[in-house]
Amino acid sequence: MGAREPVLIEGRWQASRDSGGEFRAFDPTRAVAFGPAFPISGARDVEAALASASAAADQLAACEPERIADFFDAYALGIEHDAPDLVALAHLETALAIEPRLAKVELPRTTGQLRQAARAVRERSWTQPVIDTAAGLRSHLAPLHKPVLIFGPNNFPFAFNAVAGSDFASAIAARNPVIAKVHPSHPATSQRLAELAHRALVEAGLPATALQVLYHLDPALGLSLAGDARLGALAFTGSRNAGLALKAAADAAGVPAYLELSSINPVFMLDGALRERGAALAQEFFASCTMGAGQFCTNPGVVVVPRSAHGDAFVEAAAALFAQAGEGVLFSQGGRDHYQAASARWREAGATLIGGGEAASGEGYRVRPTLWSVDAEQFIADARLRGEVFGPASLIVRTRDDYHDTIAIARALEGNLTATIYAAADDAYVQGALAAQLRPRVGRLIGNRMPTGVAVSAAMNHGGPYPSTGHPGFTSVGLPAAIRRFAALHCYDQIEESLLPAELRDRNPGGIARCIDGRWTTDDIGAKP
Amino acid sequence: MGAREPVLIEGRWQASRDSGGEFRAFDPTRAVAFGPAFPISGARDVEAALASASAAADQLAACEPERIADFFDAYALGIEHDAPDLVALAHLETALAIEPRLAKVELPRTTGQLRQAARAVRERSWTQPVIDTAAGLRSHLAPLHKPVLIFGPNNFPFAFNAVAGSDFASAIAARNPVIAKVHPSHPATSQRLAELAHRALVEAGLPATALQVLYHLDPALGLSLAGDARLGALAFTGSRNAGLALKAAADAAGVPAYLELSSINPVFMLDGALRERGAALAQEFFASCTMGAGQFCTNPGVVVVPRSAHGDAFVEAAAALFAQAGEGVLFSQGGRDHYQAASARWREAGATLIGGGEAASGEGYRVRPTLWSVDAEQFIADARLRGEVFGPASLIVRTRDDYHDTIAIARALEGNLTATIYAAADDAYVQGALAAQLRPRVGRLIGNRMPTGVAVSAAMNHGGPYPSTGHPGFTSVGLPAAIRRFAALHCYDQIEESLLPAELRDRNPGGIARCIDGRWTTDDIGAKP
Repeated sequence: MGAREPVLIEGRWQASRDSGGEFRAFDPTRAVAFGPAFPISGARDVEAALASASAAADQLAACEPERIADFFDAYALGIEHDAPDLVALAHLETALAIEPRLAKVELPRTTGQLRQAARAVRERSWTQPVIDTAAGLRSHLAPLHKPVLIFGPNNFPFAFNAVAGSDFASAIAARNPVIAKVHPSHPATSQRLAELAHRALVEAGLPATALQVLYHLDPALGLSLAGDARLGALAFTGSRNAGLALKAAADAAGVPAYLELSSINPVFMLDGALRERGAALAQEFFASCTMGAGQFCTNPGVVVVPRSAHGDAFVEAAAALFAQAGEGVLFSQGGRDHYQAASARWREAGATLIGGGEAASGEGYRVRPTLWSVDAEQFIADARLRGEVFGPASLIVRTRDDYHDTIAIARALEGNLTATIYAAADDAYVQGALAAQLRPRVGRLIGNRMPTGVAVSAAMNHGGPYPSTGHPGFTSVGLPAAIRRFAALHCYDQIEESLLPAELRDRNPGGIARCIDGRWTTDDIGAKP
Repeated sequence: MGAREPVLIEGRWQASRDSGGEFRAFDPTRAVAFGPAFPISGARDVEAALASASAAADQLAACEPERIADFFDAYALGIEHDAPDLVALAHLETALAIEPRLAKVELPRTTGQLRQAARAVRERSWTQPVIDTAAGLRSHLAPLHKPVLIFGPNNFPFAFNAVAGSDFASAIAARNPVIAKVHPSHPATSQRLAELAHRALVEAGLPATALQVLYHLDPALGLSLAGDARLGALAFTGSRNAGLALKAAADAAGVPAYLELSSINPVFMLDGALRERGAALAQEFFASCTMGAGQFCTNPGVVVVPRSAHGDAFVEAAAALFAQAGEGVLFSQGGRDHYQAASARWREAGATLIGGGEAASGEGYRVRPTLWSVDAEQFIADARLRGEVFGPASLIVRTRDDYHDTIAIARALEGNLTATIYAAADDAYVQGALAAQLRPRVGRLIGNRMPTGVAVSAAMNHGGPYPSTGHPGFTSVGLPAAIRRFAALHCYDQIEESLLPAELRDRNPGGIARCIDGRWTTDDIGAKP
């Protein structure tokens, strides 16, 4: 056992308490381990992290929001300062392109998100104060006073990293400590981010114990951690099987679990839209499906296309693009295994490969983008065809006519993050009926745009009905809404002013939006309207 | 098997499909069954109700909110029209006093709540529209498009009835069908309410299938119903054991479960308050503990009192009131059994009976109010003392001094609906420290007022951390907040105006409060600010 990288527990970088094992990052382009050894934490690290985070909870909840905001700003600045190194590390660990993806898209998105969190914390509007002056009741959303456990995914080393992404920003914005279980496919990137976060916590005068970082856990230990009643909430982004197992553990302990699981993000191409701009749509679809080797939660996994002249032309054009597509590199051996096994399930269930090839020609975790096709009837009959293939694969579902099959497909879908309708003016009738069917089955209904590219906006919903997530009422992207996942509703009944939090007092110097006696206002209480 | 009362399934009153069994209401004052036989539904009723409610979901979601509001108004009027009969029935079935409780408090509260639901539905403010004009994103809270299963409790035959109470009003306000499993301790009251609801649905032009009513289920069947993935949500008010079993079933199916479980609602009497008004506080406490035979979720189950001269005087005065108290009538044999068993557990754990008697002298489900006392140390050491006794019993916990024990007691508490601090000006130091400890452990922190009497206000929180409820972010009382439990977050991304729901369109003729580009406003989009 050589020297291993330290974990972040109790506010300091220290050697793992456990001798369970170690792992290294893999270069996905060569399938070769590289870099330093990181510890696989055991029960002692987990207990120390839980105890330390729990002890920090009241302390963090009592911090001035301004300090939290300062932390976010300092952290964003730190990330920008270290951007070249961070991007280089993430590229080595994930094989995602440095430009534009890591340097121009994901890193700025991450720092932008942290700064949005800072603004939300300064504004305090996320706390949604509701005041009934006659009844003497004042309510708002408050910290959980317990740690939030975050499991980060493999596919966004910055923007969804458990130490830097939306879950992290949301949990800290609500003034809850974070126990981050980063994804073991990018440990060095996560370590660098965690070092910056740790430094920014100290700089901002926050408890350094507000963040505990573990790199890897045995799955059984992960479940026992997720089921610890000392947690205030669990956030997870990843595969359905792992997520549902964690949810079951958390549920049993009364810990709310916010999951972002699999989604096939159906895209409906209506005939009018194909007639108007079929060739452009084939390009748009191909780009969305293969970008980042298709490793997006909102990757367009299913495209519904009529059996019409315009539909045939679209499918031919798309197939041609897939046929000439270069290989993509997946994050891990497990990812490539899944891609191949899930594609094989599509084939077994009757889908035909119509573009691209299955065999990977190069070294590392390379795969070829693949386009498949199947009839609507078969798609509806066989649930295997409605399963996610994580990677640059998509299934074209051909409808016999534009209406009946289209609606039937929509009705066969389970909960998804998104659904998209491409329509022209003369598609209005089908479009309306289809939108009505899709609406309750997805979190975000999209018009004439591919589902990839999730804007960090207050009006975003990166969520959806079960089993795309664990709760249909919340989003994991978009501030301040995402913060509310990690909050408790607190009511003050006849409590004197001096014991009230700032946003519930009579005077409102910060101009927080509050609902007072049924009206949203930024006024003081008692102000003349 | 004689003629049994019908169940409400598929929009009409019909004979139960099952031959499982039957039951009658009991007169709690005499422990004698009376009235007609009601069916115990089996799997066929349950399946028919689920299928019918599921079929109604899209239909109800598409209804104009104005129709829903009309329904609430018509229903409230119907209840008022039938008030004398309803009150008489509920009195027979529950032994709750006609005046003031049923006629003057609970029934008006119920109709008031339905009318508040009507207002919330008309205003549409509960949908919390959030619009980002630059990004082309518009989000709001929308119907679940699935039925909500509601289990009503025994203790509020009107205000929490599964066919008339806050859960019902909230679920219908969000335009979701309701499957009501009313409480079998008041079947005739529930039947009468359901008849009025059914009539009002038809009058308002809503689908009559928006409400399905079952009277009684075998517990195993209840669990299988709660775990049916066709449900959009589950609401339950009742005992912890039953609630947690239902939650586990719902969790496994991805159905969000909103529970209101047990709560001991600790009341802290600080020394200054006792010095100022100890005798009045003894009266106030006694009235709150024994009102409605103590059968309230917010009954003051624990009162923390210092071992001081003023503390002794308060305890003596309270004990004297309990000693001379008349008997109370509990709802059921099970309730009386629980009361006696739970009191016995307090005694075993070291509590001393200091006022009132345990033995019931009269017939029916009568019990004597009881006041118990125990030392702080013992209370903290033995979890049995922190268990709920549902009924007119309370446990005085004596502290050695005002600070250390008081804070230690607060820290030993699990999640509760409420906590109360009675304080005078010179209690400020303890009060502040105590409030900080209690705040994260309760949904509602109360100053100088007993926890019973839950105002139906937009700023109310009748909720709290686990295990007092199943989720710390929601309230079951207070509109519009309670509606949000039964809603899904829906985002529209680049969707044209004609496909948007009214509250997300550019024009805002109803003056809905919306958050547009970060600012709450009732303006149209594009209006000059």
